[in-house]
Parts: sequence; C-alpha cells; structure tokens
Amino acid sequence: PTLNFWYSFRPVLFAKSIIVGVVTGFLVVALRIGLTAAHDIRKSLYEALPEKPLPIQLGWVFLLVIAGLLIGYTIKRYPLIRGSGIPQVKGALNRQIRLSWFPELFLKFFGGIVGIGAGLSLGREGPCVQLGSYVGLSMLHHSKTPNLERKYLITSGAAAGLSAAFNAPLAGVIFVLEEMHKSFSPLLLVCSMASSTAADFVASHFFGLRPIFDFHAINVIPQEYFHFAIILGIVIAFVGHLFKKALYFFQDFYVRLRIPVILRPVLPLLLSVLLGLYCFDVTGGGHHLIESLCYDNKTLLFLSVLLCLKFLFTTLCYGSGNPGGIFLPLLLIGALVGQIYGGLLQAFGLIDSSHNMNFMIMGMAANFTAIVRAPVTGAILILEMSGNFNHLLGLVGVCMSTYLVGSFIKSRPVYDVLLDRLIHRNPGIFVGNERRKVILEIPVSIDSFLEHKQVAHIDWPEGTVLIGIMRGEKEFIPKPKTEILPGDQLLILASEEDAGKVQMSLIAMGASPED
Amino acid sequence: PTLNFWYSFRPVLFAKSIIVGVVTGFLVVALRIGLTAAHDIRKSLYEALPEKPLPIQLGWVFLLVIAGLLIGYTIKRYPLIRGSGIPQVKGALNRQIRLSWFPELFLKFFGGIVGIGAGLSLGREGPCVQLGSYVGLSMLHHSKTPNLERKYLITSGAAAGLSAAFNAPLAGVIFVLEEMHKSFSPLLLVCSMASSTAADFVASHFFGLRPIFDFHAINVIPQEYFHFAIILGIVIAFVGHLFKKALYFFQDFYVRLRIPVILRPVLPLLLSVLLGLYCFDVTGGGHHLIESLCYDNKTLLFLSVLLCLKFLFTTLCYGSGNPGGIFLPLLLIGALVGQIYGGLLQAFGLIDSSHNMNFMIMGMAANFTAIVRAPVTGAILILEMSGNFNHLLGLVGVCMSTYLVGSFIKSRPVYDVLLDRLIHRNPGIFVGNERRKVILEIPVSIDSFLEHKQVAHIDWPEGTVLIGIMRGEKEFIPKPKTEILPGDQLLILASEEDAGKVQMSLIAMGASPED
Repeated sequence: PTLNFWYSFRPVLFAKSIIVGVVTGFLVVALRIGLTAAHDIRKSLYEALPEKPLPIQLGWVFLLVIAGLLIGYTIKRYPLIRGSGIPQVKGALNRQIRLSWFPELFLKFFGGIVGIGAGLSLGREGPCVQLGSYVGLSMLHHSKTPNLERKYLITSGAAAGLSAAFNAPLAGVIFVLEEMHKSFSPLLLVCSMASSTAADFVASHFFGLRPIFDFHAINVIPQEYFHFAIILGIVIAFVGHLFKKALYFFQDFYVRLRIPVILRPVLPLLLSVLLGLYCFDVTGGGHHLIESLCYDNKTLLFLSVLLCLKFLFTTLCYGSGNPGGIFLPLLLIGALVGQIYGGLLQAFGLIDSSHNMNFMIMGMAANFTAIVRAPVTGAILILEMSGNFNHLLGLVGVCMSTYLVGSFIKSRPVYDVLLDRLIHRNPGIFVGNERRKVILEIPVSIDSFLEHKQVAHIDWPEGTVLIGIMRGEKEFIPKPKTEILPGDQLLILASEEDAGKVQMSLIAMGASPED
Repeated sequence: PTLNFWYSFRPVLFAKSIIVGVVTGFLVVALRIGLTAAHDIRKSLYEALPEKPLPIQLGWVFLLVIAGLLIGYTIKRYPLIRGSGIPQVKGALNRQIRLSWFPELFLKFFGGIVGIGAGLSLGREGPCVQLGSYVGLSMLHHSKTPNLERKYLITSGAAAGLSAAFNAPLAGVIFVLEEMHKSFSPLLLVCSMASSTAADFVASHFFGLRPIFDFHAINVIPQEYFHFAIILGIVIAFVGHLFKKALYFFQDFYVRLRIPVILRPVLPLLLSVLLGLYCFDVTGGGHHLIESLCYDNKTLLFLSVLLCLKFLFTTLCYGSGNPGGIFLPLLLIGALVGQIYGGLLQAFGLIDSSHNMNFMIMGMAANFTAIVRAPVTGAILILEMSGNFNHLLGLVGVCMSTYLVGSFIKSRPVYDVLLDRLIHRNPGIFVGNERRKVILEIPVSIDSFLEHKQVAHIDWPEGTVLIGIMRGEKEFIPKPKTEILPGDQLLILASEEDAGKVQMSLIAMGASPED
C-alpha cells in the first residue's frame, strides 16, 4: 500500500461499510422471517399433535432425529459454526481463529433456522453477528489491502448483524465497541455507525421502524423506587453468574458422557417434543414469550416454573453445539427474574402495580450486564427497545449495581470464556498470529513520550518511515522540525520482515501512562 | 502507589465519579436557574425600556458598561475562564495548561451569569463542561494518587456538565469520548456514564425528566425524503465552515483593533441594547428561541434575518472573550438553516408541511457535526432531545453527509483550533508536560508484538516490573510462563526518573498495527 492509497482509503472503507450493512440487513431479515414462520408452524403442530395418530407423532420425532443428525454432522465438519457466533468473531478479530465466509455463512444460516426453528431454546442474535462478520470478510476478497480493512469490515458486519436482529442500531454500535474492542478509533466508530444504520434501514423496511420488542407502554420508574432497582441488580449478578456456571457445566456434560458430536443436537431436540407438548413457551428463542410477558398477567408460580425450565433447557441446548446463541435467552431469563421480583414487591405492598414492568426490563438489562459484563451496552439496548430516554437513569443504576457486584465476585465475561473453551476443545481451529505488512497508525496519547517532541529529535526505529501525521482533520507530511502533539495519529510505513520489532520500539512511544 | 492500592482503586474512583456528577449537577442547576431568571428580567426590561425616561435608559447602558468592565478585568486576570471552556478542558487533559479550580470555578460561574444574562449571544453549555472539570479537579486535593485519578475525574466532570446542561446523559458521555478523548477504556466509559447519570438525576429533580428541548411532537422523516437530508448535510457543511471562519475572524478583530482585553466585553454588551430593543430574539443563549421555533410559524424572511444577525452577533460576542460558549448558538444556527431549508422545500411543493420540523432538528445535528466534527455526538444529542429513537436513521444520515463533506474541505474541529489559539495568544498559560510517576496500564491489542508471547521471553525495559495482568474480569500476578493474550491489560510499575524511556520501550509493544 502506498501513501496515496492511505489517503483515499477512508471514503472507500466508509462506502464498503455501508454495503456490508445493507447485505447483512437482508440476510438477517431472511433469518428473522424464516424463524417466525417456523415458530408459527411449530405452534400449530404441537397444538394438533396430541390428537394425531401414533405414526404421525412418531414421524415428527423421526424428523427431529434426522434434523439433529444433519446438524450434528455439519457442526462436526465445521466446528466454527457452533453456538453463538460472538466468540468466533472475537477470535477472528484477535486473529486466533480463521473464519471462512464460504461455506460457513450458509451453514450457520441454515443450521440456525433448522435447530431454533425446530424448537431449541437458542437465540438468533449471536448467529446474526457472525453472519455480518462473514459478509465483512467476503468483501475483503477483491480488496487490494485486506489487512488494512479487515478489522473495520468484520466489526461493521458484527454491528450490522446485531442492529438488524433487534432493530436497535445504537446498541449494535455500542456492543461492538464495548464488548468486542474495548476501545475505539474515530474511524471504527464512523464505519460501524454507518453499517449499523444501513442494516437497520433495510430491516425497518420489512418490520417497520419499531424495535423488536416494544416497551413503549412501560412507565418510567419513580425515583423513590431506586433502591429496589439497586437490590435487583445485586440479585441478578448472582443469577447471571449461576447461568454461566450452568452453561459451562452442560458444555462439559456432553463431553463427559462421551456423546459423539454428531449425536449431540439430537438429545435437546427430543426433549423439545416433551416441552413443546406440555410447556410450549420454553421452546424456541423466546421472542414471543417476552412479548406476551408484557401484556398477560401470569402467576408467580407459573413464572418461576418457566424460569427454571428455560434456564435448564437453554444451557442444555447450548451445550449441544447447535448453531444459536444465548443473547435472547439471557434477556428472557432476566425478564422473568425481574418480573418475579416485581411481583414479590407488589405482593408485599412495597410498590404500585403499575411499575411491575419496570423491573422486567431492568432485569433484562441487568442479566445482560451480569453475563456479558458490558454495562453500557445492556442499558442502551433496553433503552432503545423502550424507546424512551427517561428509562436511562433506572437502567444505568441497575446495570452499574450488577456490574460492581460482578466485579467483586470476579464473574468473567461469557463470550471470552466461550472463546477460550472453543479454542481449547478444537485446537485445530487455532491459527496463532497471521501478522503481515501494514501501515502503522500510531495514536499519540496525552502524557506520552512522543508529545511535544520534534520529529528529528526522536530516535525512530530502523526500517520505519514516518509518512504522515493526522492532526484533527488535517493530514500532512511532517518536517524534521514538526512538533508532535497529543491527539496526533502518526502514519508509519514498516517493512514486512521486522514487523514485530518495529511495533515494539514504535507504537509504545505514543501511549499514555494511565491506561 | 502500591499494587494493593491499584486493586482497590476502581470502586473508589467510581464512587468519586458519582460525587463529581452530583456536585456538578447542583452547580449546573444553579447556573440554569440564574440564567432563566436573567432572561425573564431582561425580557420585561426591554419591553418596558422604550417608554422609560432617558436617565433610566442611560442608567441601563451605564450598568452594562460597568458589567463589561468587571468581566473584562476578570478575564484579563484569569484568561482561562474566557470563552467556551471546552478547549480549556481539552488542554487540561493534554496537560498543556493548568486549570485551578479555585477561584476559576466561581469566576467562570459568575462571569457566565452576568455576560449571558445581560444579553450576550453565548451558550452556557461550554461553561458547564468547564465547571464540571473544576469539580473533578477539586476532588483531587485530598486524593492519595491524583495522577492516576486526574484524567477520569476531569472527564467525568465534563460529561456531567454537559449532561446536566441538556438533561441528556447519553450525549454527555458520547461527547467526552468522541470529542475529547477520541478513544476509551472500559473504566473511562463506566466512570463517565456514572457521573453523567448522577448529574442528570440531580437536574431532573429540578427541571423534570424531559430533555431541555422537547422535540417529542416531531414526526419521523419518511424514507423517501432521505435525499433531502443528505443535501441539507452538504449545505450545512459549508455553513459550519463559514461560521468557524467568522469566529476566528472576530477573535482577531479585537486584537487587530488593539482594543484592550478589559474593554472587549463592553462592545457587544452595548450592541446588545440595540438588539434587545429591535430584535430581542437575537440576544442571550437562544434556548427560548429554539423552543419558539418549534411552535410558531415564522416567515422565511424573518428566519433569514434572524440567522444573519445571530451569526454575526454570536461570533462578535465570542471574540470578546466573555465567559460563554458557542454550543447552543451553533445548534440554533443549524436549526434556523434547517427551517429555512425545509420552508423552501415546502414552498416548492417538494415536501409535506408536517415534515418541516424534521429539517430543523437535522440542521441542529448537522451544524454541530460540521463545527465540532463529532458526528456520532451530534446525532445522539438531538436523538436524546427528540426522545424518539426512530429519528436515528435520518440524523445519522445527515451527520455522516456533513462529516464527509467536511473531511473533503478539510474543516478542522473548532475546539482544537480554539485551544491552539488560546495557547498561542496566552503563552503564559502553557505549562508543557507535567509527567510524574505512575503505574502504567498497557493494553495488548490484537496483532501486537506482545500477544501470544510468554512473559519470560519478552525483553522488558530496565527499571520496570510487570506487577499484574488484567484479563477480562480476572486480575492475576503473572508467572514467567504466562502467555500474554490480546485484550490483556498489563500493569507495570515504572520508576519516576526514566518515565519517558520506559513508556517508549514499553507501551508500543502492546498496540495493534492497524490503528
């Protein structure tokens, strides 16, 4: 890549991000339509099934076994399409694993539709994130500088996937920044915002402008109930921690019982027949259940039974390796805990019945925070669904409470752990580090070694050339007397061979001592 | 600071951020109440003034001259309280200038009330940001580790100031991250979110939960009008650029005319009498005008006159150095341009009259983006005021359009330029770099030199000790065989003397080559 290329790089990247967003938007729309259709078919099937003759009943079970074996064979061949997809994207960003968009994109898509559509309690949001990243990766094929664009396009795709899955563009952006990158550059922010909005634009053509759950009708929590929110946050920190333990337990469970990978999806699919007949709400991702929680008044006993079944069935399903995540199930579990908590407060006469629903949405945000350890994303996601900024105070309160308690009990982020386990169980997918030639873009932080030094007075490492400085919106070729200021971005060309040494002696100069 | 201290550092910092938020919230509430009262008094005064006898009229003018001289004397003695406050906070974060909370906090507060209250067209939002940072700085006095906490508390205060000024907590957080830091660590995000929400909590006790402008009644723009939004974005990129040029021109204007600093505020104050009598809407920050724009139907001619007068008077006021910013005036100018644009489209029969207001709020977001060059903050700020997430698509569209055009015409961020000019005109305030001893917290990025290396195999710089690794939520003392992974944060103790060299050889090892 030449310097000229670098300067022309960003508008192109910006345009590509929008294309990634649009394509991801259509993919997610197809997935959502497919899963909604599957849900409706499944519902009428299980309503009719008890009256049908035995051969038809057995026929359905047989079909599920076939589907399970098919998925089992696929995930045995392509382990990277198992489970959520978010850990895989993190691994790809870290260059720890190599995702191949073809054929994994299609297998993940159909595996998700078949498994979740047949009744497994898994979320489609993780798969949407992974599909978005595959779209980003596929765009690299004809790129002249795939190494420069890789990070931005994978991230843009991931943000677009979540955005279209929930019709929540803001949450998509915050998620990729807070959970995946734990940092941002202005370019990353602009690219992911553009693709996330583009995906939402597409999705809103099909499903309307409203977010996937509509919490508009929920009142804002009064400030005198705030301590109840804080206590809920503490409770959910432990619920979330327990959920993660159960998740890891069931992953090990299949291994310990020595069930072959190919048979694993069959077990939860068979169980889904029983649940489908006797407690239909537990099957599937849970979108319809969350909606019905908003309107129907259910007894505390029923909610508690639902919570236990959903908790166990979700962790069992995830352990099987079927494509599908825990994003929506964990929101649902948070909603159930929140509603039980609100119901108890109401039963004891501590709150007014009109604020029951507040604890439901707070429970969702808090459980996301407890499990994913991304408090700002948790608050923004539910805020965006509520469509009412006045919920922000309560949501931030409950998320911060959960987050702090989680820090004390040292509860690790679930997607980090799942990535570790994925790599550990499938050593073949680990590719180490595929570093290649790049233009280094080095930020100069406040308090760093470089700030207020003249270019000529700095002992630049061998084999590097300082080719440009970006200062605010200005980009210029530095002169020997140019003073480097905090906030500058240095563009440095490095030779391919000694990339490691060059980075070592170089980039650290620009960092601030404080974080 | 010992290692033990570092581990106990974050809950304390979190608590301090909340305190900063609460105190800032009360300060901003006082400022807002004071300025609203001053506006009401001024309004009735100018309505009555034409009928009063000459001595009373002259008495008012005399009062303004005295006020101007008083402010002039103060800003001569304390140049750091001049203008907006946002450039000063950026300078303080960069350690380019040293802010002293006492007495500057009080002088900025009263200077702002007197000048803006008397009728200058300046915003109170910049001063609120600066007041928040002063609160953060004041918290460092009894801290055992002011160097570790400094950045977080200044940032938290700044976010809290903007949050309380607008009742827009989310915009406060995004602003400090996108405009001031251009990066974030999870700790910075959590601290600024906490203080921003706390400040909003306080402000909402006094002013209710609604944001300062209530755009709830505005319809969502239909997707077939999107190209009009993109064109508006292009137009406003140039308007914003012109505004910045005018701003710098009037700063130079007072200098070129050799008007002493002490006399500078007198000139716009005298002009404010004429404007107060003949076009009252142009005086003051403009809050009431934006509100009235939402409801009253004004003619295009009137709007255009208002735009020209507001444009000129604001830039003239800012040049005088009176405490007060351009945040609200620039939103107002954007609103006027947007409304004129919408009115023209309507006059040509291109849009339905019910969507006139869409272009007003889009104009606000776009002008903020054009001038401050922070597109995501611009979109989120107006989104939060509209209280309706469905505006996000349109706002992101117009902001991205403005942002891209601004990049092409190389329009620099206004607060960066104002900081440069502040330092350039007042060389005495420049303190260079006050680097002192710290624990370095070094992030290990994807693709960096450090990733996948064992601790013992790395050639650590002399005088440093690796004292801890934070991995996700885990914090542990590394062993020689510990493998460093991307996403880790390394805690490294460095001796005070060779801070520079240590940073240089160290932190760069952890950075990614791509940004």
